[in-house]
Amino acid sequence: MSSNFGKEIQISIFGQSHSEAIGVVIDGLPAGEEIDLERIQAFMGRRAPGQHKYATPRKEADIPKVVSGLFEGKTCGAPICAVIENTNTRSKDYSKLVDAPRPGHADFTAAVKYGGFQDYRGGGHFSGRLTAPLCFAGAVCMQILERKGIHIGSHILSIHGEKDLPMDDVEITAAQLREVTAKTFPVFSDGAGERMKEVIEAARMEGDSVGGVVEAAAVGLPVGIGEPMFDGLESRLAAILFAIPAVKGVEFGAGFQAAELYGSENNDAFYYDEMGCVKTKTNHHGGSLGGISSGMPLTVRVAFKPTPSISKEQQTIYLSRKEGQQLQVTGRHDPCIVPRAVPVVEAALAVGLMDLYLMKH
Amino acid sequence: MSSNFGKEIQISIFGQSHSEAIGVVIDGLPAGEEIDLERIQAFMGRRAPGQHKYATPRKEADIPKVVSGLFEGKTCGAPICAVIENTNTRSKDYSKLVDAPRPGHADFTAAVKYGGFQDYRGGGHFSGRLTAPLCFAGAVCMQILERKGIHIGSHILSIHGEKDLPMDDVEITAAQLREVTAKTFPVFSDGAGERMKEVIEAARMEGDSVGGVVEAAAVGLPVGIGEPMFDGLESRLAAILFAIPAVKGVEFGAGFQAAELYGSENNDAFYYDEMGCVKTKTNHHGGSLGGISSGMPLTVRVAFKPTPSISKEQQTIYLSRKEGQQLQVTGRHDPCIVPRAVPVVEAALAVGLMDLYLMKH
Amino acid sequence: MSSNFGKEIQISIFGQSHSEAIGVVIDGLPAGEEIDLERIQAFMGRRAPGQHKYATPRKEADIPKVVSGLFEGKTCGAPICAVIENTNTRSKDYSKLVDAPRPGHADFTAAVKYGGFQDYRGGGHFSGRLTAPLCFAGAVCMQILERKGIHIGSHILSIHGEKDLPMDDVEITAAQLREVTAKTFPVFSDGAGERMKEVIEAARMEGDSVGGVVEAAAVGLPVGIGEPMFDGLESRLAAILFAIPAVKGVEFGAGFQAAELYGSENNDAFYYDEMGCVKTKTNHHGGSLGGISSGMPLTVRVAFKPTPSISKEQQTIYLSRKEGQQLQVTGRHDPCIVPRAVPVVEAALAVGLMDLYLMKH
Amino acid sequence: MSSNFGKEIQISIFGQSHSEAIGVVIDGLPAGEEIDLERIQAFMGRRAPGQHKYATPRKEADIPKVVSGLFEGKTCGAPICAVIENTNTRSKDYSKLVDAPRPGHADFTAAVKYGGFQDYRGGGHFSGRLTAPLCFAGAVCMQILERKGIHIGSHILSIHGEKDLPMDDVEITAAQLREVTAKTFPVFSDGAGERMKEVIEAARMEGDSVGGVVEAAAVGLPVGIGEPMFDGLESRLAAILFAIPAVKGVEFGAGFQAAELYGSENNDAFYYDEMGCVKTKTNHHGGSLGGISSGMPLTVRVAFKPTPSISKEQQTIYLSRKEGQQLQVTGRHDPCIVPRAVPVVEAALAVGLMDLYLMKH
Repeated sequence: MSSNFGKEIQISIFGQSHSEAIGVVIDGLPAGEEIDLERIQAFMGRRAPGQHKYATPRKEADIPKVVSGLFEGKTCGAPICAVIENTNTRSKDYSKLVDAPRPGHADFTAAVKYGGFQDYRGGGHFSGRLTAPLCFAGAVCMQILERKGIHIGSHILSIHGEKDLPMDDVEITAAQLREVTAKTFPVFSDGAGERMKEVIEAARMEGDSVGGVVEAAAVGLPVGIGEPMFDGLESRLAAILFAIPAVKGVEFGAGFQAAELYGSENNDAFYYDEMGCVKTKTNHHGGSLGGISSGMPLTVRVAFKPTPSISKEQQTIYLSRKEGQQLQVTGRHDPCIVPRAVPVVEAALAVGLMDLYLMKH
Repeated sequence: MSSNFGKEIQISIFGQSHSEAIGVVIDGLPAGEEIDLERIQAFMGRRAPGQHKYATPRKEADIPKVVSGLFEGKTCGAPICAVIENTNTRSKDYSKLVDAPRPGHADFTAAVKYGGFQDYRGGGHFSGRLTAPLCFAGAVCMQILERKGIHIGSHILSIHGEKDLPMDDVEITAAQLREVTAKTFPVFSDGAGERMKEVIEAARMEGDSVGGVVEAAAVGLPVGIGEPMFDGLESRLAAILFAIPAVKGVEFGAGFQAAELYGSENNDAFYYDEMGCVKTKTNHHGGSLGGISSGMPLTVRVAFKPTPSISKEQQTIYLSRKEGQQLQVTGRHDPCIVPRAVPVVEAALAVGLMDLYLMKH
Repeated sequence: MSSNFGKEIQISIFGQSHSEAIGVVIDGLPAGEEIDLERIQAFMGRRAPGQHKYATPRKEADIPKVVSGLFEGKTCGAPICAVIENTNTRSKDYSKLVDAPRPGHADFTAAVKYGGFQDYRGGGHFSGRLTAPLCFAGAVCMQILERKGIHIGSHILSIHGEKDLPMDDVEITAAQLREVTAKTFPVFSDGAGERMKEVIEAARMEGDSVGGVVEAAAVGLPVGIGEPMFDGLESRLAAILFAIPAVKGVEFGAGFQAAELYGSENNDAFYYDEMGCVKTKTNHHGGSLGGISSGMPLTVRVAFKPTPSISKEQQTIYLSRKEGQQLQVTGRHDPCIVPRAVPVVEAALAVGLMDLYLMKH
Repeated sequence: MSSNFGKEIQISIFGQSHSEAIGVVIDGLPAGEEIDLERIQAFMGRRAPGQHKYATPRKEADIPKVVSGLFEGKTCGAPICAVIENTNTRSKDYSKLVDAPRPGHADFTAAVKYGGFQDYRGGGHFSGRLTAPLCFAGAVCMQILERKGIHIGSHILSIHGEKDLPMDDVEITAAQLREVTAKTFPVFSDGAGERMKEVIEAARMEGDSVGGVVEAAAVGLPVGIGEPMFDGLESRLAAILFAIPAVKGVEFGAGFQAAELYGSENNDAFYYDEMGCVKTKTNHHGGSLGGISSGMPLTVRVAFKPTPSISKEQQTIYLSRKEGQQLQVTGRHDPCIVPRAVPVVEAALAVGLMDLYLMKH
């Protein structure tokens, strides 16, 4: 059940890095929603490898084939299943890794957990490749949410400490989100973006890798989305965000910074705007009070560790011989997965928000 | 369903700040587990108000009455229900708040969500008081986990930026965790603790409040706890941690700091220790690889915002009149909830780990 | 998690026959629903023992105390918890049963499942007494459903083969359901009722017991309640009905009889009635087509086995000595639980339908 | 979420009668289980149409393509996804049915529920064709269960009242179950089988259809499978059985007949057999006491209504014109789906039992 998410909708992700196919089943969507497959393809293209020189040169078609759930271009009440064939896989690259768990990967924990029966090729079910079906599901949800006035977008906030301008968490608009996500390298400051690319390129030259932080927002959420306690916005969204490989931290609103503010600073004053809508002057709460949307932009930052696959020599173990060994991971790797992770964060938020949206509608 | 958590076990929390009682039902625990109610009472005492001068002077007995699920002192396979009566409540304190949502609280979002039918007294179901039953559930789980060699503990890492010594994420032991959690003010450096208390006292004098960060660890977890994707350690534990009121950020292992490391720094090298166990030399992964326990200490940091209830005048709105107003929250408030939140974090981890532990055992 | 039911709402039942209390937590109900506790008490009175001479003379107050979830008489979005104290319990009656599993009870299976740690007193968590909290939950749901025009009622269709008139599955109305359920002995034909009572009394005289069938209906369901496959009306309602102790069969519409009809007989012809509503001329489908409500009365029959507690000598085993023994169950027993089971069936349907109703509303 | 089933494992069924493909994702299976795909194919062949003259002449390859979850022939901890392409579909047959809901089908209820957006071709997601992926999932589970000594089998108990010999619910063995399920027409008495075929053929000649009852058993279940209340054997198995299209009744053990027995007859006396195992002399409880397996054969009977698709003229409505019309359903139909439903019942039981088996193992 671990590869299932959702209460109102349910997504079931399947596949391994080198299985015949990967994909997702999405159950519980409202019927009659038009789904534009080309837009989905474009969205998934943002995640696909091989598009930038600072990303892995491995090319994958990643064309999802929708085999069910759409009828005459619209959701029909039946589960949508999208299948993505695994085409460009080189299993031989990974053969020697059976016995040498890569540091920072799930190789070791999976080997113990599954008693050696795990599909170790390319990380198996733990591969970052499994974010492709999550992107599909997110892209579907996003189209439905947009029709309800909810827009999700994100940018790279930092790479290895090199920072973009922060998002304006009070004034950010759907148009601004659309604009930044439309960029090949989604940052507000293109100068910062250039510096980030240099950091990535430098790491690549060293056979090393870097991490970063993605900052995302959802605007247009009506007040009242999210349930108390365990189905609060933060609980549910963190649950799906932490399911993205390499995520090690999630914070909403002021996040860890809130721990250093006074209550009188952190509390966001309420007021009525000129339209008679309740707003807050600041948005340290990140759009969520008591786990329920306040009508202010929902803001979240997601920390990604550096890609664990690096060319540099590392120390690991021989599982069978119970001794240490030096390991050099060959093959095609991203020196930084953050640029490709941006749409994945958006997709995760879309799935999570779609689910919460339906809880009381 | 929002006040339910768990897949193998299930906890159902009920109650409002001023309802007749609050409590929890815990279903799915293994039978035959001895439960020491005095230890539970002692654990809950760590969360109870009125014990420190830097905490709220409101005193609550908080004595959980176990009305089912134990037989001859042991779990018997039937759900445990513990009921905690609400005794020392002063509803009048809150009466004028119906129409004046307190900044930083769920008053506004709940009013909209529930169409005005919410129990607004003392925050209702959103009150921090509801962490008492969570503590009960956590204390029960902790006793079972300890019998399996799993120990959970935590300390205050910082209050308003005033920092304790960090935990040694590689060498930390059950004994050290027990020692620090046994302190009235759980910090490794008592000097740092004194400075934190001063910060809290200063805020109290100002009618203001401060937040902080709790750092927790679980040691003794066997390799293989946690499931891929949405039932990974981080996903499930973040989901329950973010359900604690005032939590705005959660990070595991190196967390947000990992985003600034090179892969070659962040990757934790594997080796066999003298006992033939697989260990890692560093623990940036925080005990979780691919969402599955590695056998290293599980480490997590949880950011708490400053208590939203402050005596200082704040700006809010009249919901009925659709206009602004100034608000001064009276009553008894914690200038900092972090010290009382420490056992709540431990309890949340215990419930989350108990659930994951049972997934494949 | 086994004592939890529901996806949109969730009920969590706790307690054992002889624990301090039994009760239920109900989460997920809409806010603002007025709940009449006196009507609930009256409903639960129909299930309570000691009201008829043909029922057990054991008297229980069965007064549910609502400790949370209601505010000013209405649901407030927080979980409702009702606690029913166990007062009139005689644990000594059961002491010798530890080692002698009663035929037809869960004593043996529970002893094995829980390794001897089960609460064996009075059947523990398996006791029919645990249907009292289910009745509470059902009574709450029923009040909400009635406000939406949905009415549930039932009658005793047969006791030990002695039959009442069958329900008119096409024309049955809310008024008729209310009328029959208002009777102390809910049958359409009071003559049949008298014969049933004689059958029960004769069994009682013999120290024996009898079973029977309850037939229930829900009218006023809008078209479209129920989801395809595993959340279909029949699937979800059967799941909750079979959780009632002693239920061994459930059928909807024509049920087992449908297996003996021709398709041309069993298919229910559609037509527009004078109000322009789609109806069917017959109702072999029992109000459900593809698991989704058709607008016709939902009809279901539930078979109850005879009470397993009988005074007659029975053959069983000594678990500790691994040998056979003769057993005579003493204490206070219902010679027939069917009359008291009638409201339990209604309650189960109400909970199940409330849950399904909320799935898409 | 309605097309998902299971708590420990989770199956997600997708597809419509005329979508590109149908299939299933199975998550949560133990790793390292060898899966024989040829045996699965053979099992699914029992459900496939076109094999008997008394079944629909429509031929479908129904070859499931496993695209994930198996590695070197064994389960690897990742979800299994099987895709079955829809090849031999004739959409034109159904085009005129958009506006004319077929009596006994979900056409009308689905049209209302989904606001006209449902995939009406061939019943869409409600088609009996969707039992093919359920069979796949069941066949996988069956192989795992068999390795644990649990065997499931069934026979046609009756067709339109024409009866087979009943199963010996005390003595039935795995070998006997294997033998009867190996038959093309699975009945104990081949004479009865011939009479059933005649009944079916006669209905076919009339353009009519007949229903019947499938009786199934699971032997070798250890004592202790199933949880109290809502996760009891009967609750969970009924939930999945009623998800099979056309099922209108489910009974366990003596079922509805139990309602006509005295307690002294219905109670099954316990004894120790020569191996020191606890057995019961009779098996009216059908292998389940308190929802938990007793070690005796689990027995269940499932009533199927006659196929609603008949060639005879029927009365229905024009949805658009809001008036009545006569309808003659053309196309290829089974005059009796019971023979093909036999493996579906077994598959449903296998999935349900696999899930319950894992709950406490």
